[in-house]
Amino acid sequence: MSRMAVAVGPGEQPMLEQAVTEAGARTAGLDEARALVWNGSPAQFPDHLPDGIEWVQLNAAGVEDWFDAGVFERFPRVRFTSAAGAYAASVAEHTLMLLLAGVRYLPEHLRAESWRQREFFPHVGSLRGATVAIVGAGGIGRALIPMLTPLGAKIIAVNRSGRAVTRPGIPDDVETVRADELAGVWSRTDHVVIAAPATAETRHLVGAKELAQLKPSSWVINVARGSLVDTDALVDALRAGTIGGAGLDVTDPEPLPDGHPLWTLPNAIVTPHDSNPPQLRMAAFAEHVRANVVRFADGAPLRAPIEPERGY
Amino acid sequence: MSRMAVAVGPGEQPMLEQAVTEAGARTAGLDEARALVWNGSPAQFPDHLPDGIEWVQLNAAGVEDWFDAGVFERFPRVRFTSAAGAYAASVAEHTLMLLLAGVRYLPEHLRAESWRQREFFPHVGSLRGATVAIVGAGGIGRALIPMLTPLGAKIIAVNRSGRAVTRPGIPDDVETVRADELAGVWSRTDHVVIAAPATAETRHLVGAKELAQLKPSSWVINVARGSLVDTDALVDALRAGTIGGAGLDVTDPEPLPDGHPLWTLPNAIVTPHDSNPPQLRMAAFAEHVRANVVRFADGAPLRAPIEPERGY
Repeated sequence: MSRMAVAVGPGEQPMLEQAVTEAGARTAGLDEARALVWNGSPAQFPDHLPDGIEWVQLNAAGVEDWFDAGVFERFPRVRFTSAAGAYAASVAEHTLMLLLAGVRYLPEHLRAESWRQREFFPHVGSLRGATVAIVGAGGIGRALIPMLTPLGAKIIAVNRSGRAVTRPGIPDDVETVRADELAGVWSRTDHVVIAAPATAETRHLVGAKELAQLKPSSWVINVARGSLVDTDALVDALRAGTIGGAGLDVTDPEPLPDGHPLWTLPNAIVTPHDSNPPQLRMAAFAEHVRANVVRFADGAPLRAPIEPERGY
Repeated sequence: MSRMAVAVGPGEQPMLEQAVTEAGARTAGLDEARALVWNGSPAQFPDHLPDGIEWVQLNAAGVEDWFDAGVFERFPRVRFTSAAGAYAASVAEHTLMLLLAGVRYLPEHLRAESWRQREFFPHVGSLRGATVAIVGAGGIGRALIPMLTPLGAKIIAVNRSGRAVTRPGIPDDVETVRADELAGVWSRTDHVVIAAPATAETRHLVGAKELAQLKPSSWVINVARGSLVDTDALVDALRAGTIGGAGLDVTDPEPLPDGHPLWTLPNAIVTPHDSNPPQLRMAAFAEHVRANVVRFADGAPLRAPIEPERGY
């Protein structure tokens, strides 16, 4: 059986060409190919596609721009897939890193220049048996749960529907709570991960009232958007020590200005929105491409299909 | 059915009494009990046990002292269990924290007082697709593997026998390498975790020759004993930047003296042998007790049985 022909563009895309080859297909020009892997913008996208192209893989996770550009209308016979979900793993890994570093008291360890074992002992915590509330159980939240449960953490997943979060690697007994019942979560969780979209409703979702219900050992991790946390209230709680600390990959304002107290508070960890840097995005997209080329060749359902008639 | 009676000692042991109750049993005096949970030393252990005591749970993971004290000989009819395996999870969690903090460039992030996003981007790595060699696949190694695989890391487990490492949560395809073939591992792994016992053979297992085969992005994590790593060679590699960094919960010498270069090298993370602090040991032992009381009541095999005739 001859290997499936896949076009890759725009221009040279060595990592994607390798992914196609590793998937058991071969790279080819557009005229010969059955599929196109596209690592560019809608503006660069070809005006015409040969009839042989059955499937196009895009590199964006959200495809609003592609709808706006009218690309799906132009090619009604072609199946499109996005990269939705492909980039969540890196942010989830970063979240786990921030949470573990906080719970295990790493910031103060890194400042130490002598063997302060007895002083540090009581501050070294664990996620074993701890409850972690994940507010926003979308791609990042769903990627994070299977990373936390092997550590013995209990999860409260908060989403809009309250429907159980299912995915391979997620235990059946993960508690799911509807977003409108979030008020009851703060006092019974150990830690909070913010991974919900920024909307008018989620602005300052974490404010003084919510922070006051957390524990002196609680860490708040924000990897979503800075606006979900009331920065001034957070700084107050960090200064007063009413929570354990905060790990922030996103801030409000962003970029965080020089001289801001979050840069120097001993229980704040700030990473400058770099949880998903360009080189990891590319690697993650290549992995997504590899998986989808295998699926296409096998006639299996593709990951992240775009359904233009539904608008996503 | 009446609840099983379990004695707990020496003295008051509120966490262990709670664990017994949570397991569905009840606490009782020695004369009434079928089992004894012992959170003390061999020297404190009772000289005589009532005939009703069928099982004794000890709080030590290694029980050499109990053999030396002749306790097992004194009570040949009694089943003893140790706490072997109970304390590995906390050290494994600490290992994951050190490795993630290193790979994601956290030490430099914590020194930053301005938004250095573009500078940091290329330094933020990931365990996804990375190979992690775990040298010593005992309790800590076996606890660590199920924490790493959900992140997309590939594992090379190195143990004495080369027999496949099996345990719930460990994928079937984990590569296992015999310790005498370790020399071939350094050049093909991304990161190294040292979790092997300290013996004459493992002294300076990581030296200049081994470090030279690692990558400029490789992190070396040591949670076993300081003597397994040649400290001077490690400091040279960290200064030269021939490896990414080192995360050390154990050092040689230990305690690490004030003024040692490991305290201030930007790519070294030192935690003062606090990966398993006293309060977490107690919580882990309570969890072990809870599980074993349930098993005993059910007539199921107990965790960590001591086999005096075999000497462990």
